[in-house]
Amino acid sequence: MKIITSISEMKAFSAEAKTGGRTIGFVPTMGYLHEGHASLLERAGKENALTVLSIFVNPLQFGPNEDFDRYPRDFERDERVALNHGVDALFYPEVQEMYPSEPSVTMRVNKRVDALCGRTREGHFDGVATVLTKLFHIISPDRVYFGMKDAQQVAVVEGLISDLNFPVELVPCPTVREEDGLAKSSRNVYLSPQERQEAPVLYRSLQEAADLLLEGKNVIHIKEKMIEYLEEHTSGKVDYFEILSYPELEEASAADQKKIIALAVQFKNARLIDNITIIPDGRNHR
Amino acid sequence: MKIITSISEMKAFSAEAKTGGRTIGFVPTMGYLHEGHASLLERAGKENALTVLSIFVNPLQFGPNEDFDRYPRDFERDERVALNHGVDALFYPEVQEMYPSEPSVTMRVNKRVDALCGRTREGHFDGVATVLTKLFHIISPDRVYFGMKDAQQVAVVEGLISDLNFPVELVPCPTVREEDGLAKSSRNVYLSPQERQEAPVLYRSLQEAADLLLEGKNVIHIKEKMIEYLEEHTSGKVDYFEILSYPELEEASAADQKKIIALAVQFKNARLIDNITIIPDGRNHR
Repeated sequence: MKIITSISEMKAFSAEAKTGGRTIGFVPTMGYLHEGHASLLERAGKENALTVLSIFVNPLQFGPNEDFDRYPRDFERDERVALNHGVDALFYPEVQEMYPSEPSVTMRVNKRVDALCGRTREGHFDGVATVLTKLFHIISPDRVYFGMKDAQQVAVVEGLISDLNFPVELVPCPTVREEDGLAKSSRNVYLSPQERQEAPVLYRSLQEAADLLLEGKNVIHIKEKMIEYLEEHTSGKVDYFEILSYPELEEASAADQKKIIALAVQFKNARLIDNITIIPDGRNHR
Repeated sequence: MKIITSISEMKAFSAEAKTGGRTIGFVPTMGYLHEGHASLLERAGKENALTVLSIFVNPLQFGPNEDFDRYPRDFERDERVALNHGVDALFYPEVQEMYPSEPSVTMRVNKRVDALCGRTREGHFDGVATVLTKLFHIISPDRVYFGMKDAQQVAVVEGLISDLNFPVELVPCPTVREEDGLAKSSRNVYLSPQERQEAPVLYRSLQEAADLLLEGKNVIHIKEKMIEYLEEHTSGKVDYFEILSYPELEEASAADQKKIIALAVQFKNARLIDNITIIPDGRNHR
């Protein structure tokens, strides 16, 4: 496995792969890898000749009051995970390499951001779209892999790729969960033992909401009930509990529309998000 | 020469070229081609295996009160020019093909836009950057050719390519002029015979300003003098006459800094722009 820290070296690696006709599967991450990331790496490995993993905690996607500085980092462990999952090149640039100065052009995400996390994280998806644009240009992937845990991110990236004609295929992958249902997340380490015990309630509330929705219950009623349920069974504060169309993230009206049920709960030191998407026939989609 | 109107066909053309190891030189235009464009096509032809020309009047870069609807169009003539200058593929998409719906992600140009034309054409360069991003992804050029007549555009594109790591080389090319000095422009057709006679004064004022600057005259004094000169010798109204650093487009302070002298003059039915860049040793750079 090659560890690459410079943009020019990464471009050279990709150019050589392309010349040789080898496909590149790309998994962009902010590091502190868990089984969710591992599942993306495995899928990328199966579907492409080469797998590239990037680890970059992107300052542009953190707000001034967010956790950029204390976002968890552990490169040595990440390196082992990458090695164990067949990564061919690990792109690990410094902030200075990616942003030598304030970028003169950035991306503005106009749709799918006035809902869920986008509503409170102003500029977050602009930062995500900007760094992904850079990474796509540097790595030239054939396919890029994202976990559906960040469903809004997947929706935004879908728009980014299709509306700006990036020559990249987006591959959304199922959320990986602990045995008790908690979605794997780098931020789970910040839960207290008590909060960790409560956390599986999040996924249960999503499943319960899906059942109610499929029974034909009213959306507003379901939301109210689930917020009540979450606040009763956890010490966290519900940031949102929403049922929207997917991937448009608009008010879900038509009964046969694909929908997302999504939540964010703020615990003392961690804000957790989770979601499920459902399709009209009642089968759980992801 | 292939005329291509669909994005998927254009992508396929480029992919085939890449597989064969052939380089692509790209000249993006809004059509109504003149000798300025022809010089770009010739240079692209010399430096690349294949030349791709795009003709697309991009609605995103026109303001609500600008001339999108009456921007001159003449596809048959353009086709002949393209044929005569060795174009291999002419990409000529409809607006509906490029923007099937309002794009969910667009570009925001943060630097080099609060000067010259950018000051009065709000959002213009955002639209330019957005369509170029799309075209770069669709055409995958190795090199892209722009005329220095649109010097601010060149400065913005330089920032776009370098800050977002596009795998494209920018090739700025000298402004092509009529024998009397008037810069070639698609908008020159809108000059009245009287205005056309006055128009060479624009270039003369730039040359005069360069001489004064190299003699060490004060920038504010030169600007005042040139605006006076232009309003005396033309029926147009001077929109701006600026002397700035290039490509930063900031107040030119250091004597040894590369500078641009640029102007815009509004005639009855056409707004003309022109510029020259000079370097400290006094040699006219472009």
